Amino acid sequence: MSSNSFGKLFTVTTFGESHGPAIGCVIDGCPPGLSISAEEFRGDLDRRATGRSRYTSQRHEADEVEILSGVYEGRTTGTPIALLIRNTDQRSKDYGEIVQTFRPGHADYTYWQKYGIRDPRGGGRSSARETTMRVAAAVIAKKWLAERYGVRVRGYLAQIGEVTPDAFDWDAVEHNPFFWPDTAQVPALESYINALRKSGDSVGARVNVVADGVPPGWGEPIYGKLDGDLASALMSINAVKGVEIGDGFAAVSQRGSQHRDEMSMEGFASNHAGGILGGISSGQSVAASIVLKPTSSILIPGHSVNLAGEPTEVVTKGRHDPCVGIRATPIAEAMMALVLVDHALRHRAQCGDVGHVTPRIP
Amino acid sequence: MSSNSFGKLFTVTTFGESHGPAIGCVIDGCPPGLSISAEEFRGDLDRRATGRSRYTSQRHEADEVEILSGVYEGRTTGTPIALLIRNTDQRSKDYGEIVQTFRPGHADYTYWQKYGIRDPRGGGRSSARETTMRVAAAVIAKKWLAERYGVRVRGYLAQIGEVTPDAFDWDAVEHNPFFWPDTAQVPALESYINALRKSGDSVGARVNVVADGVPPGWGEPIYGKLDGDLASALMSINAVKGVEIGDGFAAVSQRGSQHRDEMSMEGFASNHAGGILGGISSGQSVAASIVLKPTSSILIPGHSVNLAGEPTEVVTKGRHDPCVGIRATPIAEAMMALVLVDHALRHRAQCGDVGHVTPRIP
Amino acid sequence: MSSNSFGKLFTVTTFGESHGPAIGCVIDGCPPGLSISAEEFRGDLDRRATGRSRYTSQRHEADEVEILSGVYEGRTTGTPIALLIRNTDQRSKDYGEIVQTFRPGHADYTYWQKYGIRDPRGGGRSSARETTMRVAAAVIAKKWLAERYGVRVRGYLAQIGEVTPDAFDWDAVEHNPFFWPDTAQVPALESYINALRKSGDSVGARVNVVADGVPPGWGEPIYGKLDGDLASALMSINAVKGVEIGDGFAAVSQRGSQHRDEMSMEGFASNHAGGILGGISSGQSVAASIVLKPTSSILIPGHSVNLAGEPTEVVTKGRHDPCVGIRATPIAEAMMALVLVDHALRHRAQCGDVGHVTPRIP
Amino acid sequence: MSSNSFGKLFTVTTFGESHGPAIGCVIDGCPPGLSISAEEFRGDLDRRATGRSRYTSQRHEADEVEILSGVYEGRTTGTPIALLIRNTDQRSKDYGEIVQTFRPGHADYTYWQKYGIRDPRGGGRSSARETTMRVAAAVIAKKWLAERYGVRVRGYLAQIGEVTPDAFDWDAVEHNPFFWPDTAQVPALESYINALRKSGDSVGARVNVVADGVPPGWGEPIYGKLDGDLASALMSINAVKGVEIGDGFAAVSQRGSQHRDEMSMEGFASNHAGGILGGISSGQSVAASIVLKPTSSILIPGHSVNLAGEPTEVVTKGRHDPCVGIRATPIAEAMMALVLVDHALRHRAQCGDVGHVTPRIP
Repeated sequence: MSSNSFGKLFTVTTFGESHGPAIGCVIDGCPPGLSISAEEFRGDLDRRATGRSRYTSQRHEADEVEILSGVYEGRTTGTPIALLIRNTDQRSKDYGEIVQTFRPGHADYTYWQKYGIRDPRGGGRSSARETTMRVAAAVIAKKWLAERYGVRVRGYLAQIGEVTPDAFDWDAVEHNPFFWPDTAQVPALESYINALRKSGDSVGARVNVVADGVPPGWGEPIYGKLDGDLASALMSINAVKGVEIGDGFAAVSQRGSQHRDEMSMEGFASNHAGGILGGISSGQSVAASIVLKPTSSILIPGHSVNLAGEPTEVVTKGRHDPCVGIRATPIAEAMMALVLVDHALRHRAQCGDVGHVTPRIP
Repeated sequence: MSSNSFGKLFTVTTFGESHGPAIGCVIDGCPPGLSISAEEFRGDLDRRATGRSRYTSQRHEADEVEILSGVYEGRTTGTPIALLIRNTDQRSKDYGEIVQTFRPGHADYTYWQKYGIRDPRGGGRSSARETTMRVAAAVIAKKWLAERYGVRVRGYLAQIGEVTPDAFDWDAVEHNPFFWPDTAQVPALESYINALRKSGDSVGARVNVVADGVPPGWGEPIYGKLDGDLASALMSINAVKGVEIGDGFAAVSQRGSQHRDEMSMEGFASNHAGGILGGISSGQSVAASIVLKPTSSILIPGHSVNLAGEPTEVVTKGRHDPCVGIRATPIAEAMMALVLVDHALRHRAQCGDVGHVTPRIP
Repeated sequence: MSSNSFGKLFTVTTFGESHGPAIGCVIDGCPPGLSISAEEFRGDLDRRATGRSRYTSQRHEADEVEILSGVYEGRTTGTPIALLIRNTDQRSKDYGEIVQTFRPGHADYTYWQKYGIRDPRGGGRSSARETTMRVAAAVIAKKWLAERYGVRVRGYLAQIGEVTPDAFDWDAVEHNPFFWPDTAQVPALESYINALRKSGDSVGARVNVVADGVPPGWGEPIYGKLDGDLASALMSINAVKGVEIGDGFAAVSQRGSQHRDEMSMEGFASNHAGGILGGISSGQSVAASIVLKPTSSILIPGHSVNLAGEPTEVVTKGRHDPCVGIRATPIAEAMMALVLVDHALRHRAQCGDVGHVTPRIP
Repeated sequence: MSSNSFGKLFTVTTFGESHGPAIGCVIDGCPPGLSISAEEFRGDLDRRATGRSRYTSQRHEADEVEILSGVYEGRTTGTPIALLIRNTDQRSKDYGEIVQTFRPGHADYTYWQKYGIRDPRGGGRSSARETTMRVAAAVIAKKWLAERYGVRVRGYLAQIGEVTPDAFDWDAVEHNPFFWPDTAQVPALESYINALRKSGDSVGARVNVVADGVPPGWGEPIYGKLDGDLASALMSINAVKGVEIGDGFAAVSQRGSQHRDEMSMEGFASNHAGGILGGISSGQSVAASIVLKPTSSILIPGHSVNLAGEPTEVVTKGRHDPCVGIRATPIAEAMMALVLVDHALRHRAQCGDVGHVTPRIP
């Protein structure tokens, strides 16, 4: 199986380098009959896009999606759906100087050691530009999950550096450039990011993502567990260094009497588990959290070596994104949606469109 | 692909329920010519075993491994290696009462909702007993990694509840029942666990696992990243609720100038990344950390419902393990070893047995 | 994915060597709730067995199936089903002499070149003994297909050497040791095989296999076509050298006006296609035909080389099977059933349990 | 795994409909460092192309390949290689009338039954146009196989209708529009096809494909056998109804003493096996043969039904190809090359770049 493919039954294969001619993906296994148009990709691609906010990287891409196959008269046919986005703002010159050096904290050195060759233009394949296609593919996944099961996947920024939200409001999330759930803090965040940008440094972030409406029974023991698949899906996002399900690392110091979610026919008393027990959804909200490291592309010089093995200093010029975690929110949603749609199909394969198994806790 | 299989090229398929007649696994893709005998499984199986220490569950299993195939005159032949362990200490009666109820924090309810049928004896397939076969399979993986590449995978308990090590010594880890790196703290840990057992409650834990000697270049972009595969492998261990690579969640509040690991021809200046950049090993130690929730099998009654949808109270009787995280150490090592051997083979497939790519940082 | 695994969603992994301690399989993805008992394997295993008829090999195996997992109180639970058969009639001595030589027409030389090591006892992994587990796994597949969809898979011997049936009667097939559809010819076939055995030689055979009741819509374009998957499934049977779907090679000299199966609402006018169009079942009977080469294990000496590269002569001693094709009938049925059940699940995953798409040709 | 993907380690995913905006593929797993340019696709695409000869279909496509990713400065980088071809000669109007009917012998009815929706333009996804991308992907596979191992894959037309070659000359094959190995027969073939075209009918064909230079040891028991994978690869080609390895169906009436290929250190005495024993290459030429049915798109009316379930008559208008088997030659080569490159990588993964295993038969 291709390592550039994701999903067992709803399979997304992505291709493309940051500054190559195009990026794209092929979605195989999408159920037939779903209505979809090129315009529907606009929303999430804008949410993910660089260059839309002064708080993220300054790259300007139109991100116009062309549907090359798999859709006939506005509906999916069951055959592979290919999506293509031409790269228009490539600025290869920005990166020209770094061809000879390995940037600390980047994939330059490891790609070189693996392949003995690398595409240095904008990070090539290791660039976060690739995640554009995940978001595009997930537009289709999200739509099918919503229409078929009423599932909704949403994310928000839960921490930047030391800053955490003082309040929580889903409505706030989509109305500020930080996906931040507390509107009152937005001005302070703006100052925070501006100060960081001036300092030439960057900072880490935490993103939470939640799926509501997931029915019980999705997920496959043992190596296809829903949480296991979420872990790899979320860890595969650029810069992610950790994944939590439910209470995550807080569980280290919890007691069993505290962590276990008691049940009654009125519902679960709590959701420490994050909606997954034994790798299978319980019917509660599926909740995950990730950390994104501070980008290594900063204006502060760093020590490294060049292709000749000589010591050198690396400074990022051009675009600089003080907190890559911000725009990871729609990407994290995308990966959760892709995991869920895959498990919806896997469950349907083995267990059929099962009806109401009693007793079902609401 | 089977959801009870792990690995793309070094594929381990496990089977068996906690209290069924046997558990076992099939390992496909092991290179030929590796010497292996049934005795070599003893060490890690003992390290994982329940009932070997009064600080873990009291189940007593002989865990005698029978090699059913794939080995001829003491050497692997390249054909599938089947390992079998008969269950001997099944005590089905201990679990008889819980057939009608869903234990909070367990997979009882979710298996029921998924399949409409479940094997209630000892948790059936969702029991940690299944991890025995992961450890067995990893004995082979570890041996091949060590012989072929000099890779060594080791783990230790990094936290129990609020307790963290005051000192670190690899030699200490294997000489106490807690895999604890600080010998001086062992008596205090014993008291801690004994008190917990008396209280009838349980506590969470953190396990760290490290691989030394991994050459640069293992891991495949984009959805076969080494850290992505580690994340799903480790998250698939029973009770795990979070996975970190390198600094993990600490990176939320780090600065880029702090997190990026600067390089020179003498080596990397630090290892915040945990030995992985862009999903590919850098040649540094590969480091991961996991959290295990406190077990829900405790002596303190908890609210739940029964098959008839009536409210009920659940109390675990019989075996009780106050910290399941302790014996997760060899399991975490096993999963890291299985990920690494798979990527060793995947790298060899695409890139061959490449020699020294210059410049290589030691 | 393991190369000893078959099927994407109903995945069968087999293990074991001809003269090792045991053979077995793990079936992952079987729908839950199917009733199954160890006794149900008896029928097809007897049909496949060697030593049950004086017209096939003289090996005597009890072939007692033990169900190790995945079944609780007589019903499948959705977790992996492991089946085990101990080898009892191993006779390693029969094969002792051939360790040093490469038998012409066998896998001895190729295994040696691939792995640099081989298990010479009875052909090791390359022995047709492995097909026992395919037949066992297919017992479950056949039962589910029959109960859920009314599908029936049957095979028969369509040619031995130059002999073809003069008449065709499904009822005859199961009442003679040749799976021959014409009872009147059975005495002649007995004489034919006896004469062949005396001559020390062997002969090829053709087996036809047919599935009735397959609904339209199974099979996935492009590389998961039903006929493509049947081809690999059937070709993977030992000694098979060719696979046909429908008219097969007869189509070389057919005209389009002759081959295309015209349609009306009363049905298809013919079935040259073998029930598959564009890789997807049409609702007609799915029909395939295979050729099995004459076994190379014969009493007539053949030229070969030994491990030292010296010329040598090879003669098979001990068991001798003049037409291995005879007992391939239940194996071919098994492989077709395994392909069909896999596609039933794959279809259900992508397209759901779709109802009646009009117009449907009966 | 995507059903529109082929290969386990050298994975080709194709997309696109016959008359959609474009067709394309993504190749994942190609070793890095291979030089490749867009011009190199020209040769095999021309060999496969329709409209280049008056003996095949009259569709005119430029088939200009654009490399979208995975190649940097003319060399593969190890990341996915995406290839795109825009459809330019779509003529949707030709097919407008058939939207309401199911053409006999085509995938119209089965796609409809499977998906409840279909793209009727030019056969949509079921069109042989998809094979263009197989040929393109195989250009890369062939080059790597040739450079790395000296493997050469070639095919030829071995029968049209009742006509078989009187002589065999590889040099002749590429110098006539029929890939026919006997130059003297070409004028007769031209007359044959012209007469067929006038009659409005079509005829079947046989294509042979051979790989020279394949080292021993490629192929994986049991379900990843080289012949099993060849069978599905070749059967997945449009219109193929049968696959043979080596002597194929002729083995039905052969004796074991005749079929087995005897060995000496000078070489094998014959190649009835087609270069594969036990699913693994023997070092001899790998030889396969396929049959392609006569196309159902003919000028002679045929009975069918329409979407309303009413009887109707179908006549193909516009392009008409009296023998689709002719241009299957490069497609068959492509599929064999894709199977071989995949097994080359799989072998390297498990067994490394093994050297000379003695004794090796030349």
